[in-house]
Amino acid sequence: MKLWEKGIPTDKQIEQFTVGNDRELDLVLAKYDALGSIAHAKMLGQIGLLTSEETTSLVDALNEIIADIVVGNFEIEDSFEDVHSKIEYLLTVKLGDAGKKIHTARSRNDQVLVDVHLYLKDELKVIKEQVKTLFDLLMESAEKHQNVLLPGYTHLQIAMPSSFGMWFSAYAESLIDDITMLNAASKIVDQNPLGSAAGYGSSFPINRTFTTQELGFETLKYNAVAAQMSRGKAEKTVAFAMTSVAGTLSKFAMDVCLYMSQNFDFIGLPAHLTTGSSIMPHKKNPDVFELIRGKCNKIQALPYEITLITNNLPSGYHRDLQLLKEGLFPAIQTLKSCLDIAIFSIKDITVKDHILEDKKYDYLFTVDTLNEMVVAGMPFRDAYKAVAEQLEAGTYKSPKATKHTHEGSINNLCLDAIKDKMKAAF
Amino acid sequence: MKLWEKGIPTDKQIEQFTVGNDRELDLVLAKYDALGSIAHAKMLGQIGLLTSEETTSLVDALNEIIADIVVGNFEIEDSFEDVHSKIEYLLTVKLGDAGKKIHTARSRNDQVLVDVHLYLKDELKVIKEQVKTLFDLLMESAEKHQNVLLPGYTHLQIAMPSSFGMWFSAYAESLIDDITMLNAASKIVDQNPLGSAAGYGSSFPINRTFTTQELGFETLKYNAVAAQMSRGKAEKTVAFAMTSVAGTLSKFAMDVCLYMSQNFDFIGLPAHLTTGSSIMPHKKNPDVFELIRGKCNKIQALPYEITLITNNLPSGYHRDLQLLKEGLFPAIQTLKSCLDIAIFSIKDITVKDHILEDKKYDYLFTVDTLNEMVVAGMPFRDAYKAVAEQLEAGTYKSPKATKHTHEGSINNLCLDAIKDKMKAAF
Amino acid sequence: MKLWEKGIPTDKQIEQFTVGNDRELDLVLAKYDALGSIAHAKMLGQIGLLTSEETTSLVDALNEIIADIVVGNFEIEDSFEDVHSKIEYLLTVKLGDAGKKIHTARSRNDQVLVDVHLYLKDELKVIKEQVKTLFDLLMESAEKHQNVLLPGYTHLQIAMPSSFGMWFSAYAESLIDDITMLNAASKIVDQNPLGSAAGYGSSFPINRTFTTQELGFETLKYNAVAAQMSRGKAEKTVAFAMTSVAGTLSKFAMDVCLYMSQNFDFIGLPAHLTTGSSIMPHKKNPDVFELIRGKCNKIQALPYEITLITNNLPSGYHRDLQLLKEGLFPAIQTLKSCLDIAIFSIKDITVKDHILEDKKYDYLFTVDTLNEMVVAGMPFRDAYKAVAEQLEAGTYKSPKATKHTHEGSINNLCLDAIKDKMKAAF
Amino acid sequence: MKLWEKGIPTDKQIEQFTVGNDRELDLVLAKYDALGSIAHAKMLGQIGLLTSEETTSLVDALNEIIADIVVGNFEIEDSFEDVHSKIEYLLTVKLGDAGKKIHTARSRNDQVLVDVHLYLKDELKVIKEQVKTLFDLLMESAEKHQNVLLPGYTHLQIAMPSSFGMWFSAYAESLIDDITMLNAASKIVDQNPLGSAAGYGSSFPINRTFTTQELGFETLKYNAVAAQMSRGKAEKTVAFAMTSVAGTLSKFAMDVCLYMSQNFDFIGLPAHLTTGSSIMPHKKNPDVFELIRGKCNKIQALPYEITLITNNLPSGYHRDLQLLKEGLFPAIQTLKSCLDIAIFSIKDITVKDHILEDKKYDYLFTVDTLNEMVVAGMPFRDAYKAVAEQLEAGTYKSPKATKHTHEGSINNLCLDAIKDKMKAAF
Repeated sequence: MKLWEKGIPTDKQIEQFTVGNDRELDLVLAKYDALGSIAHAKMLGQIGLLTSEETTSLVDALNEIIADIVVGNFEIEDSFEDVHSKIEYLLTVKLGDAGKKIHTARSRNDQVLVDVHLYLKDELKVIKEQVKTLFDLLMESAEKHQNVLLPGYTHLQIAMPSSFGMWFSAYAESLIDDITMLNAASKIVDQNPLGSAAGYGSSFPINRTFTTQELGFETLKYNAVAAQMSRGKAEKTVAFAMTSVAGTLSKFAMDVCLYMSQNFDFIGLPAHLTTGSSIMPHKKNPDVFELIRGKCNKIQALPYEITLITNNLPSGYHRDLQLLKEGLFPAIQTLKSCLDIAIFSIKDITVKDHILEDKKYDYLFTVDTLNEMVVAGMPFRDAYKAVAEQLEAGTYKSPKATKHTHEGSINNLCLDAIKDKMKAAF
Repeated sequence: MKLWEKGIPTDKQIEQFTVGNDRELDLVLAKYDALGSIAHAKMLGQIGLLTSEETTSLVDALNEIIADIVVGNFEIEDSFEDVHSKIEYLLTVKLGDAGKKIHTARSRNDQVLVDVHLYLKDELKVIKEQVKTLFDLLMESAEKHQNVLLPGYTHLQIAMPSSFGMWFSAYAESLIDDITMLNAASKIVDQNPLGSAAGYGSSFPINRTFTTQELGFETLKYNAVAAQMSRGKAEKTVAFAMTSVAGTLSKFAMDVCLYMSQNFDFIGLPAHLTTGSSIMPHKKNPDVFELIRGKCNKIQALPYEITLITNNLPSGYHRDLQLLKEGLFPAIQTLKSCLDIAIFSIKDITVKDHILEDKKYDYLFTVDTLNEMVVAGMPFRDAYKAVAEQLEAGTYKSPKATKHTHEGSINNLCLDAIKDKMKAAF
Repeated sequence: MKLWEKGIPTDKQIEQFTVGNDRELDLVLAKYDALGSIAHAKMLGQIGLLTSEETTSLVDALNEIIADIVVGNFEIEDSFEDVHSKIEYLLTVKLGDAGKKIHTARSRNDQVLVDVHLYLKDELKVIKEQVKTLFDLLMESAEKHQNVLLPGYTHLQIAMPSSFGMWFSAYAESLIDDITMLNAASKIVDQNPLGSAAGYGSSFPINRTFTTQELGFETLKYNAVAAQMSRGKAEKTVAFAMTSVAGTLSKFAMDVCLYMSQNFDFIGLPAHLTTGSSIMPHKKNPDVFELIRGKCNKIQALPYEITLITNNLPSGYHRDLQLLKEGLFPAIQTLKSCLDIAIFSIKDITVKDHILEDKKYDYLFTVDTLNEMVVAGMPFRDAYKAVAEQLEAGTYKSPKATKHTHEGSINNLCLDAIKDKMKAAF
Repeated sequence: MKLWEKGIPTDKQIEQFTVGNDRELDLVLAKYDALGSIAHAKMLGQIGLLTSEETTSLVDALNEIIADIVVGNFEIEDSFEDVHSKIEYLLTVKLGDAGKKIHTARSRNDQVLVDVHLYLKDELKVIKEQVKTLFDLLMESAEKHQNVLLPGYTHLQIAMPSSFGMWFSAYAESLIDDITMLNAASKIVDQNPLGSAAGYGSSFPINRTFTTQELGFETLKYNAVAAQMSRGKAEKTVAFAMTSVAGTLSKFAMDVCLYMSQNFDFIGLPAHLTTGSSIMPHKKNPDVFELIRGKCNKIQALPYEITLITNNLPSGYHRDLQLLKEGLFPAIQTLKSCLDIAIFSIKDITVKDHILEDKKYDYLFTVDTLNEMVVAGMPFRDAYKAVAEQLEAGTYKSPKATKHTHEGSINNLCLDAIKDKMKAAF
């Protein structure tokens, strides 16, 4: 049965199709919409398009709306198309004609642009803080477990000695690169698009520098057409930065799931982070980390979705752009929850001691043995021959201990230098 | 017929499959491989693993190899697996045992890592310069044509007045965001991975700070595991930045193709940038811009290719990573050629005058007319009614001129401010 | 503030993270879960693991649950993790121990597998019917407007004569290929995975052929590991087929939006399918088609999301797979709504007559003129020269009429043959 | 330094940019281009636009060209833009004016369309054959090793008993779904686009049914606009089918790499399929399977590349479409080589016996033990309690043997039924 045959009136169906779930998505924008309107109202007052009484009453009313939003006392009913019309309605009910004047010299287009820019700026800040917290915890774990050795793999084959100190702080240092990407995204969204109107500016003598300062943007996106083009581009950039974080988290989660397998058995997780089986006592399913991995992999598809929606559209607004919120907003919440859960879980990862005692790891140190001889002055070839003969004869004795001294090696993790690098990048 | 039945010996087939087109791809790395080896040799000398004679002879031989590479006198024959083995072979032929010592305390893994990092650093610099040149040219065109009006579209419907000044400088300002992304990618590749060996460091007392300074890296990727993880991550980050540039170029090319259509007829291109038809004199196919668009769209698939190859691989080297070069290296050349062609073509775009005289653009200024009345003090409702009545009666006279004064509008393009923003970002 | 600091107890947070929005997504599976359970109960009865009384009471209770589901009288409260546990709970409340026995010889894994397969099978049927309806309407429009000419474009440049008959039926014929893809996807999901248990089968002597027939599957996915691997693969295949339909719809919508632009002005849409502007009477924004385009472009990202979630996971169940529903289920509803709206809108597209009278289309027929001379016996070169001279001299008279007679050309659309092809493919 | 400053003349640079590597890519099309021309020539003869002498001489000359192509005696020099112009040149040199007539009533557009359709049809046939061969080998291995047990994993945790019989035949059965996708793609490319000319048909009285039969297409793509739209769509569909095969291969390769790890140690590979280390005797790097995995993952990005290039382009030819060959053609060769290597390697995989004797697999059979008691009549709860007590007390004795009897389980692999399914699908 087609929608059209379900007895839903045509208008209603078209409306459902066009509005989609905008009302729900727009809730996160409500605060920013009101903040944008406050700046806009003040500016209209400053250039004389509003009287100072009108300005004051609009700002007061908008602050009251923000107060309602903050305590969760705000909703967008079905009779409103989006957050913008709802807030305008509230202002008009309260202030009459003065309420309607808020829409002077702006358009729905630059209104949603400024909302989204403010929103993304804030969320990027939160994500950065979370990444920093995760970094700190990984560094703590690295420090704590720096002497616990772990086999290192290449091609999934046992290769060289590593350690939990190496493993934890590797992901920490990798997160610094993600901070660099988050910074770039932050810089790109930190440009005021308000005043671009429908994408070509307006003939009103508005003061965009004023609203830029008022809203705390670092600069403005000057060109009105460029401001309009930032719709889609800003979202894609944020998605790239999120993808960067998500990629790091996903890889870490993959390691955790592998290391939890009984065939590796390098780490343990407490009961609340696993699911078990009443009849298979060996099972400790790392569902939480599997879901971090899966959710972070899903996030990595986001830039592609955004690109597909926006690609090959000529400049100027298209209604398609409305759909960007649908993918991006939930992805932001998902990434934040993945970071939260990772932050929560890191400290609960227990590391197994004595891993290297298993005989399958016996050959881990052959290269180190060889290197030692070389450093001690034996020609490489002789050293090589000596070790090879020991291996052949079964007389090779693995040292089970290491003297890796260079920067970033097992016994010289450079944790302070890495912390400094994070500090500088943050 | 299967490969196996073509009479090619098995070893040869496996070798073809595993080596792929690495020899060809590796040519761009040759110079960087030699530079990395020079730094490594000097460091081995500094820590006493090479004598000063060995160091000097290695450095000299490597500089000779670089000289050969620069003049195109270097190839990787089928008897060598990759650039690394070719250069090592050259050193060994020339210096005997001293030549072989270059591989002390390093691995193929960190060698290719350092090569790729150096290569990407350089290419990002070139791309940044190209973007800056394109920016300058767009700004020149904006300035030159700032008074030529153009209809602005929303929903592909004629909407508001715009101008060539707005259009050209919009893409210029948009490129500044791409510079921000290129900067982030540059920062991320500007970390020395040399010394991470097979991904877990080594027991040799190497001095990574020394090679970091020698190679001109801003810092080192301390953790050896993190350095290894930068394989794939560095490439993906660069691909994100390239995608950012490509997205801007692709959109500009789409506009050009649309504006070239006889149904818009806003711009013209000279014969050498179009293909025509001997029998259809109206045809001026903008092949060059279609190919910029298409090539830049293809580039935008690159991050996803990289993600698909690397995703869900646990930490540690995997042979799959070799395949990253195949997608990335040609894409870099493609992006550079698209930028080159765009740089070459911008000045050849001729703009049509008097576009707005066509009657289909008559309603472009209704909103401006209305705004003027409002600014002059007429209540919005009365102004609206007056204009609507004129439209109804067919008496509406379009002003065909504008007074857009705010920052980033038709008559106030803020070109200097945009130039300053680029300067600060670059 | 972190989730952990919001006063939500840890267990609750972990639960929110792991359950996600499964309860909501699972609602569409409820009917299929009950149907799967009916087949499973009957089979358990047939092999003697349930008494006939137990079987009967389970089947009756499940049929009652289905009746409730159909009328919308079914929900999954927060106390249940998913649809499976809710239905099992209902059975246990009603039937006591017999209710619990329904889970004998099956696992959550094969339960969700069979639910998803049944669900996808049904949805693919609906989508196929919609595509067929859209095909019929496009063919009707093609027939109705077959004599109305349209310029055909290459490189967005005016090129050759075309017609609305060509345009409408081109999209119709293109949809036949999408039917082929939908058929392939249907065939792939039409294989019973029930009985694969946790992915390795079970030691119970179950009868999978019985449940295959009972559930109306064409065959079974025999190998239990293969059945488990179909999780992700089935979804991806369906996403490919959906992407195929979405690609066709998106392209059609792009044409509609372009043809609606005043610069083309080939078609019109009624008020309820556009949004206008009170002050710009020329604006008829084709929002509905922009959203069809955008939503269908978003759908085309779905296979990539699924691939990213499943790629490089070794065989066997992983919790990540739960996330596949999140992307796929809403995308199915979106595609169906896009098809619905397209079906609803096709008949409302009005076509403009006399388009070719505009002088910019004068050269459309030069090639036809030339061809006519050639067919009439004039050597190509002479014909070419003659037409070129006329063009040069401005004496060329465009025929404004066509005699395209070959299969699939303007005057020989082969609509019946295309209809037959659809019939054969469907 | 910009291209423009390298002393390369402008025309040359533009030409390099627009032609790209078409000459190299077009080599695979040469045979199909000649075949298409033969059919076209015969048809022109049939409708009287060529004399029978002209037809005969063209067909003869084209057959000679094919003979040259087959023995590798054909190249596209820099003086030719593509394969079409080279072949036309050869015909003109040989036949004079008659050679030029081959281009009557066709366009470069439908020429490349028919070439690509014929080429893809052939390659899909090859790929299908390879998949069938791989299927056969996997089935052989399944049969041969059907009694060798393997632990089955869920969440990467040891879960249930499985076997090599299960594992090998799971991938075999999974390949049947890929055959279904390849069939769909084959059906879609098996439609003759020749005669669509530049995308709008022509005024010549050509006979497309004739060329359809001549070229062995199952049907024609009637509508000329639809035929043109199949550019991009055909490629995307083939890419979907290839992605399906690649996904199966990639997953299999992931399993192989994991099972080769010393931590699993389930299988072995001979020396020619691995790389080792002279000093780490335990290393057997499965490079070949890592590269199958990586290459197949890369292939899975292809549909997205194609979508990005074609998405949001309105109907009609665009030069962008030329770029589709660049991604697709090498990917086809890559997939074929991956299948070849997989076919070659399957028989060389050795399976380890006695895997389950390791004590970490002791709990694999607890569920089977429980099931047996239930089947034997013990109430589930009592059985559960009994097994739990044994586990608690350490007295649980794992049976180390299985009686899985249902369709598709360890002891009832249904290999014949799976073979029948393949036969029916092929």
